[in-house]
Amino acid sequence: MKPDFSKQNGLLPAIVQDAGSGKVLMLAYMNELAWNKTVETGKAHYWSRSRQKLWLKGEESGHVQKVREIYLDCDLDTILLRVEQLGGAACHTGYQSCFYQRYSNGEIETVGERVFDPKEVYKK
Amino acid sequence: MKPDFSKQNGLLPAIVQDAGSGKVLMLAYMNELAWNKTVETGKAHYWSRSRQKLWLKGEESGHVQKVREIYLDCDLDTILLRVEQLGGAACHTGYQSCFYQRYSNGEIETVGERVFDPKEVYKK
Repeated sequence: MKPDFSKQNGLLPAIVQDAGSGKVLMLAYMNELAWNKTVETGKAHYWSRSRQKLWLKGEESGHVQKVREIYLDCDLDTILLRVEQLGGAACHTGYQSCFYQRYSNGEIETVGERVFDPKEVYKK
Repeated sequence: MKPDFSKQNGLLPAIVQDAGSGKVLMLAYMNELAWNKTVETGKAHYWSRSRQKLWLKGEESGHVQKVREIYLDCDLDTILLRVEQLGGAACHTGYQSCFYQRYSNGEIETVGERVFDPKEVYKK
C-alpha cells in the first residue's frame, strides 16, 4: 500500500504538520521518487515544481524535516506528514510556518515571528 | 489581499484543520468562486473537481464547516482553513479526518473510529 501516483500526473500534495505542536507548516508536492526517498531516509523529500528536481527539504538551510508519522487520505492521493522540524522554521522566509498571513475582511495580518533571517541562512 | 488565483489554473489547494483539536481533516480545492462564497458566508465552499461544480461542504450530509480562521501561505497559492466541523466528521467515509490511514513500512493501519455511517447520512 502506498499513495496512488497514477493520479494527478504523479504529483500529489503533501501537507506538513509539526508533530509536536500540531501547527500546519507548509504544503509541498511529492512524486514517486520523492515518496520513496522520504520513506527510505525518514527525511522529507519533495518534488520542486519550479526547479523540476528532487528536493531534500533543508538541503540548503540545514532545516531538515524528520518524519515521525505518515498518513494517507481516503483516496490515497494526498499525503500528511507529521514531522520534527529542525531549526524551528519550515518557511524559506524564516517563519515557523508558511501560513504566517491571517486573512480577515480583505486584509492580511502577519502572525508569528521570524525564527531565522533568510539572508543569513541562504547566503544569497 | 486575497489568494492569487492567476496561479495553478485558478484552482488552489485548501488544507482544512479542526480549530479546536488542530487535527488535519482534509484537503480540497478552491477556485475564486469558492473562495468568495466561503468568505461571504463563513461556511467552507470548495470546487469539486470530479463534479466540476461549486460545493458547499456538508450540503448533503449537513456536516458544514464553520470557518474560524483563514491563513494564506507565503506564495499566496495555498489556503489554510481552521474550522469547526459540524457533525464531528469531515470525511465522506464517516471518519473524523480523511487521513485515517497511517502508513508504516508498506502497510496501512486504520486509525480513529467512524463517527457516522455513510449509508445513513447520504441515503445512497
